Amino acid sequence: MKDFVYYTPTEVVFGRKAEEKVAQMVRKHGGHKVLVHYGGRSARESGLLDKVLKALDDEGIPYVTLGGVVPNPRLSFVREGMELCRREGVDLLLAVGGGSVIDSCKAMAYGLKYSGDVWDFFCGKAVPAASMPVGCVVTIPAAGSEMSDSCVITNDADNDKRGVSSPFGRARFAILNPERTFSLPPYQTAAGVTDIMMHTMERYFSHDDDMDLTDALAEALLRTIKDNAFKVLRNPEDYRARAQIMWGSSLSHNGLTECGLQRDWACHKLEHELSGMFDVTHGAGLAAIWATWARYVCKDNVSRFVQFAVNVMGVRNDFSDPEGTALRGIEAVEGFFRAIGMPVSIGELLGRPLTEAEIAELARRCSHDGAITVGALKFLSRSDMEAIYRAAN
Amino acid sequence: MKDFVYYTPTEVVFGRKAEEKVAQMVRKHGGHKVLVHYGGRSARESGLLDKVLKALDDEGIPYVTLGGVVPNPRLSFVREGMELCRREGVDLLLAVGGGSVIDSCKAMAYGLKYSGDVWDFFCGKAVPAASMPVGCVVTIPAAGSEMSDSCVITNDADNDKRGVSSPFGRARFAILNPERTFSLPPYQTAAGVTDIMMHTMERYFSHDDDMDLTDALAEALLRTIKDNAFKVLRNPEDYRARAQIMWGSSLSHNGLTECGLQRDWACHKLEHELSGMFDVTHGAGLAAIWATWARYVCKDNVSRFVQFAVNVMGVRNDFSDPEGTALRGIEAVEGFFRAIGMPVSIGELLGRPLTEAEIAELARRCSHDGAITVGALKFLSRSDMEAIYRAAN
Repeated sequence: MKDFVYYTPTEVVFGRKAEEKVAQMVRKHGGHKVLVHYGGRSARESGLLDKVLKALDDEGIPYVTLGGVVPNPRLSFVREGMELCRREGVDLLLAVGGGSVIDSCKAMAYGLKYSGDVWDFFCGKAVPAASMPVGCVVTIPAAGSEMSDSCVITNDADNDKRGVSSPFGRARFAILNPERTFSLPPYQTAAGVTDIMMHTMERYFSHDDDMDLTDALAEALLRTIKDNAFKVLRNPEDYRARAQIMWGSSLSHNGLTECGLQRDWACHKLEHELSGMFDVTHGAGLAAIWATWARYVCKDNVSRFVQFAVNVMGVRNDFSDPEGTALRGIEAVEGFFRAIGMPVSIGELLGRPLTEAEIAELARRCSHDGAITVGALKFLSRSDMEAIYRAAN
Repeated sequence: MKDFVYYTPTEVVFGRKAEEKVAQMVRKHGGHKVLVHYGGRSARESGLLDKVLKALDDEGIPYVTLGGVVPNPRLSFVREGMELCRREGVDLLLAVGGGSVIDSCKAMAYGLKYSGDVWDFFCGKAVPAASMPVGCVVTIPAAGSEMSDSCVITNDADNDKRGVSSPFGRARFAILNPERTFSLPPYQTAAGVTDIMMHTMERYFSHDDDMDLTDALAEALLRTIKDNAFKVLRNPEDYRARAQIMWGSSLSHNGLTECGLQRDWACHKLEHELSGMFDVTHGAGLAAIWATWARYVCKDNVSRFVQFAVNVMGVRNDFSDPEGTALRGIEAVEGFFRAIGMPVSIGELLGRPLTEAEIAELARRCSHDGAITVGALKFLSRSDMEAIYRAAN
């Protein structure tokens, strides 16, 4: 069991019409001039953006808007946003959207409290020591960025996708209304479910097998998300099911399912290279890699994979064959991903297999030219990475 | 499903030697002059108090100490502590102990930021709008006060035990080292386990049957605490088992197991009158009441009690007899309380049954002379309260 720090100060307002509290939350968390940053058309077309702006108007809180983030948000965009904030004297950043919008705001929030280049935090040159307050009105349950300490940005100069985690990366408040997710298309819903589950699974597969409470909570969360995935795909306006997924998204990445464990994160790092290079949906990229990764590392902690198979995937334990039970658990995850419409290979993800040159390049980037390993359950070297990309192809 | 706010800003430092971080946490959370409030001899004799004071000395943080709280902490003591803090210019209150010590500090923290009488908050005359920062070094996993928003104090003028819950009642930081609980005697350990489980059970028994994730997390927490109770009673120095209970104590009362539910709290309120009148251990008082309460209200939501019986207590579901399954779940809790050495009736708790006059007086107080009901699963009137005290006798 690892010692741990658990610090989740984000104030969550959850429920129907939660967005009506936005101006009150901005005031409470010290905002006097707000950047309202939203993503694509959906925030505008759904009427959510108007509601948010009206709430700010009614409270007499001045704001400036910034639209147009893309999935895998770009450093150049973050820099533009920072410029706008400086020019307008913004003191709170309000993200209206999903993980890309929130992460853009978080990156701006770091940069606005730093005299150097904001990319310094992402390439490891500097560690955040402050940030401007960030609030969120969440529309896509997936990234969990509304409660997490993490922020991921792609440098558009070279498609280098990098993350930074810091206590200063926590949003001050998050407004979660499950109704706002009714209009999410099935593919985005399923990719979100995958990302949510992976945030806990990347922590769960650890050599720390002695933190029973974290395991029990993680398993409970994973089972609940899995069961509700089918419900929302069948009926996108099922409030109850959408609520489980939305709240699960926040809890899966806020640190709760990590307490006492050494986290792994290999799949996220392998996937970041994929979505950096090909701009695919992050959750779908994770689904395309996970089972291959799991088979590759399973022998390093078979009993952990057995526990997962039995407690999460409902696989019957064959006590005489732990490895068989473990593998059936991995197959069950593959079956689940297929059932919700996710790819289970990189070929399916991209519509074509990777070339050998691409495999080499992905592993080169992920390993920083061979300088680092990723993962903790098993340390993955550059050649391990190549083997996984190839086997997942 | 109820809309909810989830706000748990307490920074938790968990693990071996966690108390070595105390001075760093005091600084981080703005303390310049600290009241170090500790309970009985154990903090002194175990060496914990010395460690804490040394850490403050090493960091050059001035402090004043205050010892001697009792279980069910007293208003008069809170007033003395406030006087001391004012005299000494204290700006952060550090509780070294269990729930009584923490709650005394929380009450002082409210009072020090209020011009009126601190009891106003407890008798409902005023609502907290501020508090002085509180930190905790926890030695008893039970009350969960280190992460909760609640604070319970007894007015020694008339043994009136009252609680107040407020976002300003959250500690800024909590230091949790499971080793510090090795020396807890079996009775205190078992009473703590009961209190911990009850903090979730008081929320679980609700008419909101549609918040699957909260239910799943609550059930996971309860199973984990239950299983580990036997381990710590068999081997008090089992770090792994003590850690589950200590972390479970914080999570059980920080609001996580309440999201989306209408909480009940009837047993706590019935028990507060018992421990206000007889000064019994709170957890033991809860054990003495719970099964009687459960049988009394079970018919108001049988399926909920069935879910609890099956998912928490491992009772086999007799699908043709939901009420029978529910009752076997209640019996299983009674069996568990007996197995860990807790009383399952008020007679066992006090060593003698209540008199009819005492029953009437307890119900009179709990109902505020008949003016209020308690509970939410079933609203309990003054006569319901009398019936429960009598049946639990």
